[in-house]
Amino acid sequence: METLVKNPIKGGEFVIRSQSWEEIFTPEDFTEEQLMMANACTEFIEKEVAPQRHKFEEKDYDFTLQIMKKLGELGMLGISVPEEYGGLGMGFNTSMLVCDRISGISGSLSTAYGAHTGIGTLPILLYGTEEQKKKYLPKLATGEWMGAYCLTEPGAGSDANSGKTKAVWNKTDNTWSITGQKMWISNAGFADLFIVFARIEDDKYITGFIVERGTPGMSFGEEENKLGIRASSTRQVFFNDCKIPAENMLGERGGGFKIAMNALNVGRIKLAAAVLDSCRRVTTLAVKYANERVQFGVPISSFGAIQQKLADMATRTFASESATYRAGQDIEENIARLEASGMNPQEAKLKGVEEFAIECALLKVHGSETGSFVADEGLQIYGGMGYSADTPMEAAYRDIRIARIYEGTNEINRMLSVGMLLKKAIKGQLDLMTPAMKVASELMAIPSFDAPDYSKPLTQEMEIIDNLKKAFLMVAGKAVEKFGMQIEDQQEILINAADILIETYVAESTVLRALKTLHRNGEDAARYQILMAQLYTFLAVEKVQKAAREAIYSFTEGDEQRILLMGLKRFTKYQQPVNPKNIRRHIASKLIEEGRYCF
Amino acid sequence: METLVKNPIKGGEFVIRSQSWEEIFTPEDFTEEQLMMANACTEFIEKEVAPQRHKFEEKDYDFTLQIMKKLGELGMLGISVPEEYGGLGMGFNTSMLVCDRISGISGSLSTAYGAHTGIGTLPILLYGTEEQKKKYLPKLATGEWMGAYCLTEPGAGSDANSGKTKAVWNKTDNTWSITGQKMWISNAGFADLFIVFARIEDDKYITGFIVERGTPGMSFGEEENKLGIRASSTRQVFFNDCKIPAENMLGERGGGFKIAMNALNVGRIKLAAAVLDSCRRVTTLAVKYANERVQFGVPISSFGAIQQKLADMATRTFASESATYRAGQDIEENIARLEASGMNPQEAKLKGVEEFAIECALLKVHGSETGSFVADEGLQIYGGMGYSADTPMEAAYRDIRIARIYEGTNEINRMLSVGMLLKKAIKGQLDLMTPAMKVASELMAIPSFDAPDYSKPLTQEMEIIDNLKKAFLMVAGKAVEKFGMQIEDQQEILINAADILIETYVAESTVLRALKTLHRNGEDAARYQILMAQLYTFLAVEKVQKAAREAIYSFTEGDEQRILLMGLKRFTKYQQPVNPKNIRRHIASKLIEEGRYCF
Repeated sequence: METLVKNPIKGGEFVIRSQSWEEIFTPEDFTEEQLMMANACTEFIEKEVAPQRHKFEEKDYDFTLQIMKKLGELGMLGISVPEEYGGLGMGFNTSMLVCDRISGISGSLSTAYGAHTGIGTLPILLYGTEEQKKKYLPKLATGEWMGAYCLTEPGAGSDANSGKTKAVWNKTDNTWSITGQKMWISNAGFADLFIVFARIEDDKYITGFIVERGTPGMSFGEEENKLGIRASSTRQVFFNDCKIPAENMLGERGGGFKIAMNALNVGRIKLAAAVLDSCRRVTTLAVKYANERVQFGVPISSFGAIQQKLADMATRTFASESATYRAGQDIEENIARLEASGMNPQEAKLKGVEEFAIECALLKVHGSETGSFVADEGLQIYGGMGYSADTPMEAAYRDIRIARIYEGTNEINRMLSVGMLLKKAIKGQLDLMTPAMKVASELMAIPSFDAPDYSKPLTQEMEIIDNLKKAFLMVAGKAVEKFGMQIEDQQEILINAADILIETYVAESTVLRALKTLHRNGEDAARYQILMAQLYTFLAVEKVQKAAREAIYSFTEGDEQRILLMGLKRFTKYQQPVNPKNIRRHIASKLIEEGRYCF
Repeated sequence: METLVKNPIKGGEFVIRSQSWEEIFTPEDFTEEQLMMANACTEFIEKEVAPQRHKFEEKDYDFTLQIMKKLGELGMLGISVPEEYGGLGMGFNTSMLVCDRISGISGSLSTAYGAHTGIGTLPILLYGTEEQKKKYLPKLATGEWMGAYCLTEPGAGSDANSGKTKAVWNKTDNTWSITGQKMWISNAGFADLFIVFARIEDDKYITGFIVERGTPGMSFGEEENKLGIRASSTRQVFFNDCKIPAENMLGERGGGFKIAMNALNVGRIKLAAAVLDSCRRVTTLAVKYANERVQFGVPISSFGAIQQKLADMATRTFASESATYRAGQDIEENIARLEASGMNPQEAKLKGVEEFAIECALLKVHGSETGSFVADEGLQIYGGMGYSADTPMEAAYRDIRIARIYEGTNEINRMLSVGMLLKKAIKGQLDLMTPAMKVASELMAIPSFDAPDYSKPLTQEMEIIDNLKKAFLMVAGKAVEKFGMQIEDQQEILINAADILIETYVAESTVLRALKTLHRNGEDAARYQILMAQLYTFLAVEKVQKAAREAIYSFTEGDEQRILLMGLKRFTKYQQPVNPKNIRRHIASKLIEEGRYCF
C-alpha cells in the first residue's frame, strides 16, 4: 500500500491542481496481498461461476444464493467489515478490487454482490448503533444472512426522498409500523435483512430502518422480467403495517436521505470498478474472435476497422481503470487520515468517501459508458454470432445496460458532479474563483509563441490536460457568472460541463499512470501505456471540444462567444499533432499478438 | 406521385451537385393512394399485432406465420410484384412506405417481412425466368408460400462469396445436387421456398438456386436463441445431396454473387425505411412517459436533460425519414426512366436500384444508427422501467441491435459507400476530380469577407451543406492522391470519409424538405421542420468535424495538415451562430404539447 502523501488532494480539487505521477496511485501499486485477494476472486469466478453462467440466464436464483454463500465462506462479503464484526477489515481500494474481479464477464453477479455488500451492509456499518452492528454485521459479513436495500418506490426514483412509505410509532408496544411499496429491490427473493426507508409523520427527510425477513406484514411481488442482470433476484417488496422494534431505526430520525446518498457515493465508485473485469474479458473475447474469424482470406483482426475497435476498447478500459483506482486510493487515504486525526472509524469512513462524492459520480458515468461501449463493440466484432444468446456477448450487452440507470442515472450523476463542485466553491471549500479569473485574463492576453519542448513522452498531453481544466473553468465560470444559482435550470449546460470534467479527470489519470510506469520501469515497460495515454487524450480532447462548443453556443453570443470559442481553440490545440490511426494500429497489434487484453 | 424530373440526379452525384427543394421528393408528397396503403398497414399493426406482441417474445412462430398470411391477404406481400404475377405492382417508394409502417414499435416483425418480400421474393422477380416467375411469384405475393434466403454460412458472412456450399450436376437425371450448410436463415422454420447460393465446380462466383421445402436432403437446425427480433424464425438449413431440377437455377451460372449484392441494395434502403415507424413510436412513448412521470414535483418532461433527448430523438428520426424517401423516389423515377427508354422492366428495376447503391449503403447505416439511438434514449427516459420486459422499450432496444449487423455490417457499408463513389469517379461516371481540384485551389485562395445574407430561413444551412461537400472532397481527394488504389487498406480513413458523406446527405435532405414545406405552406407550417433542419445540420457539422479531423491527423503532416485543418475550419464555420439548447427546447415543447411524435 502507498504511504500517506504529504499534501493530499481534496475531492474535486483535480480541476484546479496538477498532480505529478508520484502523487497518484496506479493499479501497478497494488500489493502482493491485494493481488492475492483479486486472484482468489478471479479463480473463484472462473471455477465456480463461468462454467454455470447459463443458470443466471435461467433465473436460477438458488444458484445465485449458493454462489453468494460461497463468496461469504471465502470472506469476500466481509472485505470492508472490520474484523471485530467478523469481516476482513480491508481498505477501500481492496474492496474495489474485489468488486472489479467479481464482475466476471458480464457483471450479472455484480448486482447481487453490490446490493449485499454495498447498500445492504454498508448503511449498518456506517450508521448502525453498536448493538445493530454486533447483531447484524457478522451475519452479513459471512454470508449467513443476505442483505437488501429498499429505497426506490413506484413514484420515487431519481427523486429518492419523495417516497410515500410511512413509519408510524406505536406507543402501546414501542414499535414502528411500516407501510408502503418498494420496487426494483435487488436480492429481494432471498435476502434476510432489508434496509428500508420510510417517512415519519411529515418529516422533510425519510428515515432508515432495519427490517428482518419474516416480519409479519411483509410480502413480495413476482420476480421482474429484466433485460439483463438475471443473476439478480429483483422484486417489489410490500410492507403492510409491518411492526419492527424501536431499536431497529437506523441512524437518526430524518437521517435516511443522508444514509441513502452516502451509500450511493460508495455504490457509484464501486460500480465503476465492477465494470472493469467485464471490459477486460469482453475485449479478450473480441480479440480472440477477431484472430480466429477468417473473412476475405485473412483473420478479421488484420482489418483497420476491427483494429480501431480493439484499440479503443482496450484504451477506454485502461483509462477507466486508471481513474477508478486513483480515486479509490484517494478515498482510502482520506479515511486513514481522518482516523489518524482522531475521528471515530465509522465517521471517518463516511466523511472519507463523502469528500470525493464528485469523483464517485464522474467515475460512475465513465465506467458505465465504457462498459456499454466495450460490450457494444464486442458484439459488433462478433457480427451475427454476437446477436446469438449462445455467445457471451449477448448477455454482456444486456447486463451492462442497467449501469447507466441505477445508482443514479448518468444524467443525474453528470448534473450532480458539476453541482457539487460549484457548491464546494460557494462554501469556500475549493477556490475555483481565483483560477477561473486567471483563465479569463489569459483569454485576453496574447498567447505565448515559445516553441514548446515535447521531447519527453506525454509532455504535450500533460500540457493539454492543464488546458482542458482551463476550458472547464472558462465554460463553467462564464455560466455561473451568467445564471448564478439559476444554473440548476440549465441542465443541458451542466451536462456539457460534466463531460469536460469527466474527460479531464480520466485523461489525467491515464497520462499520470503511464508516466509513473515510465519513470519506474523505463520506456519499454511503459510503451503501450504511453500509446493509450496519447490515444485517450486525443479522444478526450475531441469530446471536450464538442461539449464545450455546444455549451458556448447555448448561452453566449456576439463578442463574448467569439472570445470563448477562441479560448476553446487555444485550450484544445495540439502543437505537435498525433496520429490516431497509427497509435490505434500499434495498440491493436499488441492485443492481437497476445490474443487478449494485456495492459 | 411526382412527375419525372428533367435533370435527374445520378447515384452519388449529391456530393458534387446542389439540388433545390423543387427537385427532391419529401414525405409530404405522398399521394392519397400511397397514404391509404400506409394507413392500412398501421391499422393492421395496431389491431392485429400490437395487442399480441408478447407472442413474438414467446417465440410463437405460428403467430408470425399467421400474421404474414394475413398480410398476404391484404396484398402487403405483393406490393412490388407486378399485377400479372398476382401482386399490386406498386412503385418503389410505396414499397418502402409499407416497410416503414409494418415495423410497428420494435421492428420484430420487419425481419420476417423483409426476408419474405425482399430477399425471399425479389431475386425471382429480378432474375427469374418467365417460368420461374409464373410458378412462384403468385404464391409468394399472396402469402400462400413463404420465402427465405440462404446466403450466409458459418465461414461466409461479410465475405459472402466465400461460401462452401456446392452444386454438382447430375448428368443421369438432369438435376443439381446441393450440399452445404447455411446459417442465420430468417423464416427458415416456416418458409416454403428458399433462394440458395452454391458454388458450381471451382467457379469464381456462386450461383443462385430455388429450392422448395420438402426436397429430400434438406434439414433444419434448432431455432436460434437471439437477443431480439424474436418474431423471426431463425435456423440453420442443411443441404445434403439435395436434388433440384435444372430449371431451378436462378439467373446465370456464376451470377449468384451479383444477385446477392443487388438484393442487398434493396434490403439496405428498405431497412432504413423499416426503422422509421419504430423510431416514431418509441419517441411517442418516451414523450408520454416523460409527461406522466413526476419527480421533484414536476413531470420529467419539464427538465432540460429530458427535453434534449426528446428533441434529438425526433430530429434524427425526421432527418432519416427525409433522406430515405428522397432516395427512394430517386430510385423509383430512375426505374421509370429506364423503362421509358425501352429497357425491359426486370432489367430496369435492377439497374434502377443499382445506380443508387451508394445511397442505399449510407441510409442503411444512418437508419440503423438512428434506430439504435432512439431506442437507447427511449429506454433511458423510462429509467428503471425501461429495463423491464413489461415495458415496450426493452424489446425495442433488443430488436434494433441487429440492424447494425445484417444487410452488411455498418462498417462494411461505410467502406462500401466511399469505395463505390471512388469507383464511379475512376470509371468516369461521376466527375469528382474537377470539383475536388476546385476545392483544392479554393483552399489556397483568400476567403471572401462579404457579409452574407442569412435573412431567409436555412440560407446559412444550405451554404454549410455545400461546404460539407467540399470537406468531403478535400479529405477524400487528398487520401486518394496519397494512397491511390491502396486506399482500400486505409479502412479507418474510409470510415471517416463515409461519416462525412452520410451526414451531408441526410442534412441536405432535411434542409431541402423544410424549405419545400416553407415554400409550399408558409412559415407557420414549416416552423418545426426548420428548427429540426437547423438542429440536424448543427449536429452533422459536429460529426463532420470529428471525422474529418481524425482522417486529416491520420494521413497528413506538416504544412499539408495545417492547410487541410484550416480548410476544414472554413468549411464547417457558422457565420451566424445557432443555439442548440434553445432549438432543442422549442422542438421538445411541441412534442410535449402534442404528447407524441408529430412531425
